Amino acid sequence: MEPRPSGGSKPAEPGPCLRSPGGACQGTSAYSLSSAGAEPGCSVAAVLPAGGCGERMGVPTPKQFCPILERPLISYTLQALERVCWIKDIVVAVTRENMEAMDGIIQRYQHKRISLVESGVTRHRSIFSGLKALAENRPNSKLSKPEVVIIHDAVRPFVEEDVLLKVVTAAKEHGAAGAVRPLVSTVISPSADGCLDHSLERARYKASEMPQAFLFDVIYEAYQQCSDYDLEFGTECLQLALKYCHTKAKLVEGSPDLWKVTYKRDLYAAESIIKERISQQICIVMGTKENEHVGLLEEMLKNELKQVNVTSRPLCHAGRDLQQIILEQCYNFVCVNVMNFDFQETQKLLGMLEESRLSILYPVVVVSVHFFDYNSVPFGEKMENLMWIREFAKEVKKRNILLCGLLIYYPQDELKLQESLRQGATIIAALIKERNSGLVGQLLVA
Amino acid sequence: MEPRPSGGSKPAEPGPCLRSPGGACQGTSAYSLSSAGAEPGCSVAAVLPAGGCGERMGVPTPKQFCPILERPLISYTLQALERVCWIKDIVVAVTRENMEAMDGIIQRYQHKRISLVESGVTRHRSIFSGLKALAENRPNSKLSKPEVVIIHDAVRPFVEEDVLLKVVTAAKEHGAAGAVRPLVSTVISPSADGCLDHSLERARYKASEMPQAFLFDVIYEAYQQCSDYDLEFGTECLQLALKYCHTKAKLVEGSPDLWKVTYKRDLYAAESIIKERISQQICIVMGTKENEHVGLLEEMLKNELKQVNVTSRPLCHAGRDLQQIILEQCYNFVCVNVMNFDFQETQKLLGMLEESRLSILYPVVVVSVHFFDYNSVPFGEKMENLMWIREFAKEVKKRNILLCGLLIYYPQDELKLQESLRQGATIIAALIKERNSGLVGQLLVA
Repeated sequence: MEPRPSGGSKPAEPGPCLRSPGGACQGTSAYSLSSAGAEPGCSVAAVLPAGGCGERMGVPTPKQFCPILERPLISYTLQALERVCWIKDIVVAVTRENMEAMDGIIQRYQHKRISLVESGVTRHRSIFSGLKALAENRPNSKLSKPEVVIIHDAVRPFVEEDVLLKVVTAAKEHGAAGAVRPLVSTVISPSADGCLDHSLERARYKASEMPQAFLFDVIYEAYQQCSDYDLEFGTECLQLALKYCHTKAKLVEGSPDLWKVTYKRDLYAAESIIKERISQQICIVMGTKENEHVGLLEEMLKNELKQVNVTSRPLCHAGRDLQQIILEQCYNFVCVNVMNFDFQETQKLLGMLEESRLSILYPVVVVSVHFFDYNSVPFGEKMENLMWIREFAKEVKKRNILLCGLLIYYPQDELKLQESLRQGATIIAALIKERNSGLVGQLLVA
Repeated sequence: MEPRPSGGSKPAEPGPCLRSPGGACQGTSAYSLSSAGAEPGCSVAAVLPAGGCGERMGVPTPKQFCPILERPLISYTLQALERVCWIKDIVVAVTRENMEAMDGIIQRYQHKRISLVESGVTRHRSIFSGLKALAENRPNSKLSKPEVVIIHDAVRPFVEEDVLLKVVTAAKEHGAAGAVRPLVSTVISPSADGCLDHSLERARYKASEMPQAFLFDVIYEAYQQCSDYDLEFGTECLQLALKYCHTKAKLVEGSPDLWKVTYKRDLYAAESIIKERISQQICIVMGTKENEHVGLLEEMLKNELKQVNVTSRPLCHAGRDLQQIILEQCYNFVCVNVMNFDFQETQKLLGMLEESRLSILYPVVVVSVHFFDYNSVPFGEKMENLMWIREFAKEVKKRNILLCGLLIYYPQDELKLQESLRQGATIIAALIKERNSGLVGQLLVA
């Protein structure tokens, strides 16, 4: 069967867009830092078929473009590949009608080393398009044929460097390799009348997942030999390598994280996982003055959010220390303004955050904490003074920073103080965990 | 292989606990109402193996007992079966050490028609325990042998009545039936050296899911005949019916909702699905006076929460109308206190909610809305007046009611009013969607 044009008219030969600036590995922000350790010792590129329409999702948007925390799923997958320094090029195959949108995603989230090609009507045809772009030395193309090519899905955003390294290394040795997982359900074979014919012994089979990797020449040869039937109805690249090149793929045990976002529930799961990952580190920022409450608040937060790394940093000395924290991808800040009616500390922090462009990839939560004592100032007045936060929050929300205020009651009584700090920690935890933009600008009270 | 005792010492013969009060179908609250339509026309019971340890979840609690919105997963599954009137008995197999905890769950969430038996060390042995309890007429046991038995998993909480009816009806005709789903991943067979031997053609196989149903005599016979090897290592009940009773199960296409909670991400997904389901209906409650803003707020909420059913009801006439809403399982209330400094309406509503015991199964969100105008009263004073809500929220939280206050700015300017109503709707939507108990008692400002 001939490839159908994806956009309605007959497509030009799929080729790479001339964008990829190539370039050094910039460690563009990751939810987990690149291990930056072992390298496979050969040239590597990746191909991502992303031409699917996501019919199983039950939503009109193709699943790779569904937003998670307002960013399309595919951007998370690109980010996961991008942070692996030794992947030189990433070729993404999208339909002609999504080409522009994809281009916008690459610009907006500052993805590097990406080239776009037009996808085919099936998964195999899209992969083939990507491989062709790598194989052919086109004029003006910065792509070059790699020794090993990774094939991954646009809808598996949680792929880690170690499994990529494992499949690439195994592919170098065996010609082909792919990640596998144990089966979750028993697999059965139905008879023609819709009844059980037989069930497979679960332990003897595996689910084939992604990523997979191949010696480029092996998989390119396989696709060139491949029958139209296989291009149209096949699902398994490892099978093509076996069938057309007699290359027996090495199977590599993958982690549960490799699962494919298929149904709407998977989007929910992905969102929760991403939220959890970016909530793993909280930085408490304080003014120049020493502050005994900060230590207590830090303790309470650690209690509230087990397994979360809570540190505190002064905002002084042009915040060099804080810059480091920002570089290390901390997406949660608690800014303590002690006994102050103003919010200079918070403003300074927000300035630094905006400059750092940290919030390009994830919404950054900032909680502006103010302590108050009933005795020194009436509660109502205090709140009124702090209503600036509403306007300010509106402004910074445009740059993906979620700002809330938190007033912590600060009585003389030690036990009562502990209680209000504890409640403060609960509120901060809720704001960080949920990351709900509907609540920005609110002034909460502990 | 002989069964190992689950509690450390050799178990007594597993048998039913003498608890089930039997009883009429009370339609105990469901996220979706029972269709209460067709019935299978035969006696039906269900067996739920729940003795697993959830090793794949990576958490110490067995997955069926993992909390979702603070309620154990298995309680959701019981609720899903319970609301199906024609399932007479539900037999749950749990380990000896979880017997007491399970008992507590049944009491706390008021589950009906449940009997407990001690599970075996494998899934098949647990199911066999459940079947034995139904087969034997024990003294003091209210259980009796059903014509058809459903086997379901404790960790598939979203089973719907229609698929239960389908498998039961098919089992009545064919002797056995089970739900199936298309495969998500390609299934491959590894060779002994960890390489690809062959891949299965995805379209020719299915994933076997739950629920399944059997003529009781068929499956009981199969288990009695069953080899120790099958009891120990088998995974598929349909296969046992085929192997030992030559009964070819009818395969019924199930919905994606039937998936099994297996990994931590599945718990996240389940929580999001449950939150979404209980957020589908919002009731705006108002005082006796007519109120023009309520209509506008209703519109804004409908805009904010597409596909959500928003209705408004007066709180007058002893709230008979409102009782109906509560009966229909609405878990979200917006209580409007117009131009009032007090909160009588909210208190009245909270009283009704507590009486209704609606919050036994799900946290109920109540947003107490207060309109205010800068001109009539200073903002700070207004807020101070409304701080009662913090203490009150603490009280009702004990009964699983999540109370927040919302102050909506009410200017003369029509456009500004619309803007603050819109922001109010956004905040209400955030509170309802997230259902975060960390924010109860807060007074938010729109």
